[in-house]
Amino acid sequence: MRLATLRTPDGSTTAAVRRDDDYLSLAATDVGALLRSPDRAAIIAAVNSSTPATPVSEAVLTSVVTTPGKIICCGVNYRSHIDEMGREAPEHPTLFAKFASTLCGASDDIRIPGDADVDWEAELAVVIGSPLRSGDRTQAEGVIAGYAVANDISMRRWQYRTLQWLQGKAWDATTPLGPELVTVDEIDPATGLSISTTVNGVTMQRASTAELVFDAPDLVAYVSEFTQLEPGDVILTGTPGGVGAGQKPPLYAQPGDTIECTIDGIGTLSSRIVGGAS
Amino acid sequence: MRLATLRTPDGSTTAAVRRDDDYLSLAATDVGALLRSPDRAAIIAAVNSSTPATPVSEAVLTSVVTTPGKIICCGVNYRSHIDEMGREAPEHPTLFAKFASTLCGASDDIRIPGDADVDWEAELAVVIGSPLRSGDRTQAEGVIAGYAVANDISMRRWQYRTLQWLQGKAWDATTPLGPELVTVDEIDPATGLSISTTVNGVTMQRASTAELVFDAPDLVAYVSEFTQLEPGDVILTGTPGGVGAGQKPPLYAQPGDTIECTIDGIGTLSSRIVGGAS
Repeated sequence: MRLATLRTPDGSTTAAVRRDDDYLSLAATDVGALLRSPDRAAIIAAVNSSTPATPVSEAVLTSVVTTPGKIICCGVNYRSHIDEMGREAPEHPTLFAKFASTLCGASDDIRIPGDADVDWEAELAVVIGSPLRSGDRTQAEGVIAGYAVANDISMRRWQYRTLQWLQGKAWDATTPLGPELVTVDEIDPATGLSISTTVNGVTMQRASTAELVFDAPDLVAYVSEFTQLEPGDVILTGTPGGVGAGQKPPLYAQPGDTIECTIDGIGTLSSRIVGGAS
Repeated sequence: MRLATLRTPDGSTTAAVRRDDDYLSLAATDVGALLRSPDRAAIIAAVNSSTPATPVSEAVLTSVVTTPGKIICCGVNYRSHIDEMGREAPEHPTLFAKFASTLCGASDDIRIPGDADVDWEAELAVVIGSPLRSGDRTQAEGVIAGYAVANDISMRRWQYRTLQWLQGKAWDATTPLGPELVTVDEIDPATGLSISTTVNGVTMQRASTAELVFDAPDLVAYVSEFTQLEPGDVILTGTPGGVGAGQKPPLYAQPGDTIECTIDGIGTLSSRIVGGAS
């Protein structure tokens, strides 16, 4: 099953399920609200021939989950990115947080500040479907609703101002998440999905999700040691080699650039970079 | 004005305003919801002689804001703590995030895991009252609703596992926030409020809020450069010297300890440490 969150003409949003070339609206404001609803199975089952349909080609997507209670991000989690950043292989996942306000849609423009050294980071996003605290790997596998693509756009000049990365990672509406949530019955990143980034059509990142140092169940179990994961929570699993900061010399995104992040079997985020963030 | 969030017998919560030795219930589920309401002035003005009152001595407080959209924390922000941790004075605020699920009430027990090197961090908490993006210092002063006390309990053994601190700072229900929000018309931390921590009655931290490297308006303005602050958002301003990790040898909290964090003019958090967090 493929789920998405659509902007509606009244300025609101709706969760939707994909059927061929249409999105069928569901009785939930976004995929996160759908996952949190005790009636989620019934909501999806209620789709019928009279359900409002939006052609995929006309749909305007917002982030697949709009108001997650938690977004937990893992850094330095692909060997190729660890090498290019000159780091050691970690014993534990390197975790930081993002706010829900960082999220945006799969085709939204991304507004950046000047002099920020703006970088791309294609990532496999894990969306939680059921609560979990202190779970093991097997339990962790059982609470994953599905997967999406994220681009953890990073303002490197801000990120490296201090020991902590938050101020380079928390700019409003700079993290596209989507385009769709593909549920676990249809996809398994452990089998090795191609993950890639192009900047103006030139491939910068290409790896396999099978190369994750800490994979999705590892991360879900680890995070659940200190906090109860809830439906709609999001874990970003880290980015492979090929970021701009790893180029010699470094190469950063500029206004006018188009950045596309793709995971085969999930979909593509296509973001136009625009200037003018204050 | 002093505002608090009380647990109610039905398992819910309510915002309340203090009048002498009573809390008078307000038509909002917590102080954050009150601040977000366009009717907040009318809600407070509606208090009258028939408003339900709870004696302060009988009230059970939860975190003064229960579901902030953002909790932004500043580390290394008092000279005395910078020195004891062997760090350099920062050019920019060192920021990290917490989740709303970390919060708890001013008198709640704090459940800790074993072998975690559990430390105390008394902090001045800033609660936002109005939206702000890209504000200067003067605008920042204008959006602060008031101040509370926080204890940024830190699992040092987890915190220092990796470059990023999140996994030592994000344990559920380990950050008491309260006891009350004291509004800006009644208090100004720039005048120098005594901030202190005792562990089993022994003073470990004592400083003045006038010693902050980056003060409340500085932090509000800085954070607003990358994200829109919203009513109910919380900024923790960092802790002074005297944490357990700074002792020689280090000294950490154990089950059975009572940690009290006080800011004069605001109030005291009194937390009993209990074991058994999984």
